[in-house]
Amino acid sequence: MRAVDIIRKKRDGHPLGPAEIEEFVCAATRRQWPDYQVAALLMAIVLRGMDATETAALTGAMVRSGVRLDLSDLPGPKVDKHSTGGVGDKTSLVLAPLAAACGVVVPMMSGRGLGHTGGTLDKLESIPGLRVGLSLEELRAALRRVGCAMIGPTTEIAPADKVLYPLRDVTATIESIALISASIMSKKIAEGISGLVLDVKCGSGAFMKARPDAVRLARSLTAIGAAQGVRTEAVLTPMDRPLGRAVGNALEVIESIETLKGRGPKDVEDLAVHLTARMVRLGGLTITLEEAEAQVRMALASGAGLEKFRAMIEQQDGDPRVLDDYARLPTAPRREVLRADRAGYVRGFEAERLGRATVLLGAGRDRVADTIDPAVGAVVLARPGQQLKAGDALLELHYSAPARLEAARALLRDACPIEDVPPTEDLWALATVE
Amino acid sequence: MRAVDIIRKKRDGHPLGPAEIEEFVCAATRRQWPDYQVAALLMAIVLRGMDATETAALTGAMVRSGVRLDLSDLPGPKVDKHSTGGVGDKTSLVLAPLAAACGVVVPMMSGRGLGHTGGTLDKLESIPGLRVGLSLEELRAALRRVGCAMIGPTTEIAPADKVLYPLRDVTATIESIALISASIMSKKIAEGISGLVLDVKCGSGAFMKARPDAVRLARSLTAIGAAQGVRTEAVLTPMDRPLGRAVGNALEVIESIETLKGRGPKDVEDLAVHLTARMVRLGGLTITLEEAEAQVRMALASGAGLEKFRAMIEQQDGDPRVLDDYARLPTAPRREVLRADRAGYVRGFEAERLGRATVLLGAGRDRVADTIDPAVGAVVLARPGQQLKAGDALLELHYSAPARLEAARALLRDACPIEDVPPTEDLWALATVE
Repeated sequence: MRAVDIIRKKRDGHPLGPAEIEEFVCAATRRQWPDYQVAALLMAIVLRGMDATETAALTGAMVRSGVRLDLSDLPGPKVDKHSTGGVGDKTSLVLAPLAAACGVVVPMMSGRGLGHTGGTLDKLESIPGLRVGLSLEELRAALRRVGCAMIGPTTEIAPADKVLYPLRDVTATIESIALISASIMSKKIAEGISGLVLDVKCGSGAFMKARPDAVRLARSLTAIGAAQGVRTEAVLTPMDRPLGRAVGNALEVIESIETLKGRGPKDVEDLAVHLTARMVRLGGLTITLEEAEAQVRMALASGAGLEKFRAMIEQQDGDPRVLDDYARLPTAPRREVLRADRAGYVRGFEAERLGRATVLLGAGRDRVADTIDPAVGAVVLARPGQQLKAGDALLELHYSAPARLEAARALLRDACPIEDVPPTEDLWALATVE
Repeated sequence: MRAVDIIRKKRDGHPLGPAEIEEFVCAATRRQWPDYQVAALLMAIVLRGMDATETAALTGAMVRSGVRLDLSDLPGPKVDKHSTGGVGDKTSLVLAPLAAACGVVVPMMSGRGLGHTGGTLDKLESIPGLRVGLSLEELRAALRRVGCAMIGPTTEIAPADKVLYPLRDVTATIESIALISASIMSKKIAEGISGLVLDVKCGSGAFMKARPDAVRLARSLTAIGAAQGVRTEAVLTPMDRPLGRAVGNALEVIESIETLKGRGPKDVEDLAVHLTARMVRLGGLTITLEEAEAQVRMALASGAGLEKFRAMIEQQDGDPRVLDDYARLPTAPRREVLRADRAGYVRGFEAERLGRATVLLGAGRDRVADTIDPAVGAVVLARPGQQLKAGDALLELHYSAPARLEAARALLRDACPIEDVPPTEDLWALATVE
């Protein structure tokens, strides 16, 4: 089977067979196809699409390009969660310990922030000493001892994605439901899980702006899960406004700890509890979602979730004292409060602009090679719907370089409209995609 | 302007601006864009298309990637012909000397055969000693002295095409009207011509099988010519059956010489005369096509065309004695006659299968690196419409390796149907595309 014939077939809109997809993934991973042939096929896939059968075959081939973990020697259901990425989305940090406290084993492999969205690994690394670069053996030991671990990509898991993703990034071939789905699901399936909850973000601050696109992505992801024998549920959640109040790595760790202490913002707590409850039910630990939610709320109220987070931090060589003393986390040297220039009702900050502003401050990356500042970020002080006087505080920026502050301020101009009437939109509706 | 942004723009179906196209062509030629970005953009162009403005800009940028010859110091109009490729199409060998004999300067840069179609350079090189690798200075001297020259691609002419074409070949991005048009026209425009006649082949043995595709290609090519100040005419000609009787390099040279002697097959003579007449009229040497045809027929009948061919062969270091002694051309050691297995009317050989059969004998290439045997090929002995008895000769194969003969015979089985009624189709209708 020649590369050029496989490319031509997809170019002409025909579905590729499993053997052709396997050949492509194997040859790309082993660098047997030159990058230009891989790139040409990727663009043909972006423009011609892949049907559900092809996407499942692509995912399977990407899983087989590396190791699929076998965690069957560990007691308990293995269930994970994946979010398609948002601003202020620290759900994983709350959910993994809560799920572990309820008896779910959570072998979570996460990513770093890119663009305007944050990444779980970056947030975790603001905890002094904490290592995310665990080997698969260390992961196994951590799961046995704590029940959850949050680690970075390893070379053994879906190496095909490590070849394809950087190439997609520079050839404008990211935006394909099939390629996105296979990239996400291959890494998750390789974790050796039997269940997966997907948090598909939808809205102006999400990767998927329009609801039909988000639904298509959710359907594609769950279909792959089903084809690969992983029970998969998708929940559509809004991402027009940031989740919670804190945006920025150490600031989000603090908000996560506060949430595990029962003092977090309601939206963060509610989403974390809901997604955790789905994991608990998917793992077969309860029959109904209501039972599961009750169990999760119990783990939250009892502090069992917080203690799992403490154990996980210790297991990954982090300093657990941060849980009781936030001053041990990196702190930005300077603060600046943005204020309302008129009286009225707060509509809320646009998530994407707020995310971009914190990237400008140094909280995130525009390119993979950029370094980040764990201390900087923003804390929203005025929640949507709140009534303000002119001069009331809207947002606190935590920054270090004054030049970066100016760039962030400029970007945030008009990012939080204040209106004469309260906002009527109810953005906070979750939807399950079956 | 970042490569990925240009790729994304075309991927999303937007027309590229002239500066973006110039950036792409310059950077690709200088190897400043990696091949995988070039390949991704090429695939996006294949699937999204380019409008006439973009295609003209692409062609212009490809011309500017190298030298555009200035032949204004040579007297006479500079006009060339290009064919999109067929089987048995030796028109160039007849037409260039005829046009020169009529006062047209013909700086013809040709290509080699690829796939089932032959190439002018391969045919010429079957003449002992003949060089097609003339420098631009040698080309100029040849044009001044003889009036026509037929040479291979030089590094100075449209170097962008020399980067893009091989990459298109291995990434399934050949099949794009815009990319094909720009590739053809950039090389022709760079020749420094003021007029161009295009022979757009259409039919089962042509690159464009369907008439609407051939018309689209013809329109695209003539629009580029107009945009670049080169008067361009396109003629659609059929390519369902081979042109003439001979297919194969030395065999086609012989048929060309026979045609220049006034003894060639009618279809070869008629097409060569018609296209040459268009060149003469495009060059402003006559007002009407009828006058031009009369002039060309005169050059044919007087032997002036044959003498120009002799002068051209001498000028390019070939042995001109081949004109009078075909035994000086390479000759295959073996012959095999294929015969009719029943009585009836000959429908004619399918051009593509006959072309492929001669490639199997060694007359052409499947890959650029393949070497060819100038002696092998086929001579059609039964013309379409002819009435035959069972056992009458259909085709003579000229071959060297018996194993190759078997492969060719197998391919030619049923390639020339014999029917109870004479064929009614009139394939030989030329059509001008305005």
